[in-house]
Amino acid sequence: MSEKVIKTTAEIFAAASVVGGKESEGPLGDLFDLCDPCDRFGTKTWEKAESEMQRMALNTALAKAKKKAEDVDALFAGDLLNQCIGSAYGLQSFNIPYIGLYGACSTCAESILLSSLMVSHGICDIAAAVTSSHYCSAERQYRTPLEYGAQRAPTAQWTVTGAGAFLLRGANKEEPAGDGRAVVTRCMIGRVQDSGVKDAANMGAAMAPAALDTLCRFFEETQMNPDDYDLILTGDLGFEGGDILCSLLHAEGYDIDAIYNDCGKMIYDRARQDVHGGGSGCGCSAVVFSADILPKIKRGDLSRILFLATGAMMSPDSLKQGEKVLAVAHLLEIEHWQGGEA
Amino acid sequence: MSEKVIKTTAEIFAAASVVGGKESEGPLGDLFDLCDPCDRFGTKTWEKAESEMQRMALNTALAKAKKKAEDVDALFAGDLLNQCIGSAYGLQSFNIPYIGLYGACSTCAESILLSSLMVSHGICDIAAAVTSSHYCSAERQYRTPLEYGAQRAPTAQWTVTGAGAFLLRGANKEEPAGDGRAVVTRCMIGRVQDSGVKDAANMGAAMAPAALDTLCRFFEETQMNPDDYDLILTGDLGFEGGDILCSLLHAEGYDIDAIYNDCGKMIYDRARQDVHGGGSGCGCSAVVFSADILPKIKRGDLSRILFLATGAMMSPDSLKQGEKVLAVAHLLEIEHWQGGEA
Repeated sequence: MSEKVIKTTAEIFAAASVVGGKESEGPLGDLFDLCDPCDRFGTKTWEKAESEMQRMALNTALAKAKKKAEDVDALFAGDLLNQCIGSAYGLQSFNIPYIGLYGACSTCAESILLSSLMVSHGICDIAAAVTSSHYCSAERQYRTPLEYGAQRAPTAQWTVTGAGAFLLRGANKEEPAGDGRAVVTRCMIGRVQDSGVKDAANMGAAMAPAALDTLCRFFEETQMNPDDYDLILTGDLGFEGGDILCSLLHAEGYDIDAIYNDCGKMIYDRARQDVHGGGSGCGCSAVVFSADILPKIKRGDLSRILFLATGAMMSPDSLKQGEKVLAVAHLLEIEHWQGGEA
Repeated sequence: MSEKVIKTTAEIFAAASVVGGKESEGPLGDLFDLCDPCDRFGTKTWEKAESEMQRMALNTALAKAKKKAEDVDALFAGDLLNQCIGSAYGLQSFNIPYIGLYGACSTCAESILLSSLMVSHGICDIAAAVTSSHYCSAERQYRTPLEYGAQRAPTAQWTVTGAGAFLLRGANKEEPAGDGRAVVTRCMIGRVQDSGVKDAANMGAAMAPAALDTLCRFFEETQMNPDDYDLILTGDLGFEGGDILCSLLHAEGYDIDAIYNDCGKMIYDRARQDVHGGGSGCGCSAVVFSADILPKIKRGDLSRILFLATGAMMSPDSLKQGEKVLAVAHLLEIEHWQGGEA
């Protein structure tokens, strides 16, 4: 059996974020690249709006990097919609070789992980990772149409309306000095974990054990400790799941409290925006990581972090058939490297 | 821009197939490893039956190879069910690092392609690819519950009840002589194509242009010709889509008629089994490739083939919203190699 921690040298050299109105009004609102306050992005349906966000996100990332679609060798994408139509319809016009993913809310990390492997091993020169979620399309698919006005449980999370796109290429530490870079240096593929949770309104609790499994396996194999990192960031455990993860880690002998944060806790103002358990969805980790965390790594404000996006691998049908919520968490270790192409 | 055709040296060293009753009564019936004539596999719902087929398929492939779940470094899996619950619930108990995919009916080729890349580049020692479909779960999700007794269109295809699992490891041509091997030598990631088709009962026509795009790009870049292959096999274009692909290729100057076949044409007896357009679904290409084609490559009856699985990247919702059917086709070149571990 080979090592489960996989070494990579993949630079995330461009990224872009597109969000809806509520996200633009949150604490990180000024950092996102594009926003439509009405969440429709010029389209007639919420599903088409989600596709349009993905298109805009990849387009913006390409423009920032001064690259064309033809420069990208492979595209890793997915979303929460049935049959992942957000990605397929949103990205079709780029005509880039396309690998469709389904990792639920873990898709941001999953797509960056696979992109990192591709560019680190010279399979691709440039790979792209794109993902999204939309509050309105998710609510009517997973819970009830918004028009019903259903009451939300205290632990329920608010699906982020947003899309993030990332461009990756191989990195070489010996390149001439230039701007700071964000480099994926190691990664770990998550295992599907059974949380025992059956409550679809408490996804944070259902996903925390998956994050625990991946983090503990990573620490054990690498002999790294929480102290070795400036930040351990999960994707959308929210307030409930984040607390559970920290408690579970205490029981395993790891204390990450001082350096832990979660994208779902960061994106909305809990006191002011009525989001209960915090943000969630593929778009949550994608836009927070893209707009807030990645620039901090590039600047060197963060020198080494762990980023885990967690996903609940269930459907409304599986829960109705008495199944529990399964979850998976993929991990990326990302470092600030000085030097490289300016 | 790097080459779009990716070189690999990945041996498919074990495979297994699990099917339902109708498939076991078809022309290939005797070749499949496991069968449940009532399609329920001891479970209470069609969705759970689909999960159980995946579990049985991977378990059987591991048993054939005398490997344990712990020997597998990564698992690439997906299916047609919303949120890919067939794979998540079916494979959770193996506790193998899990990459969820959504490629619709292209998932068999997509998962083998990614597995090939992983083992060829030493990222994994052993990778597994698993996929499935189930007639009853697909009909109620994509069309109407079976109990409605809806009339099927002449071009409609019959979703195969079946699951296939494949185990891959790196291959070395200089290994000592032994049994014949099936080695993935090159592959190509498909691009999402817009067929212009809006008829959900004519998936073959909607997916043929995707197969055309990938095949033509492959022939162009490699300078290979149809004559260089013993077989060009598509996954589930069926009778309608298969004819369309051959016609479209004629217009591009390629004649594959003599060496072309499709898993959806092979799995059922058209005259006797009332399947209209032929078989379809992720499981269609997975079980036909696993049970019929792979042994022929290992024995040397087929010395070099191209295998393309096509997938329709749409949902019932996207068609209701006026979108056309998008499709993607991933390609694998697979060769018979003599020698290797006995």
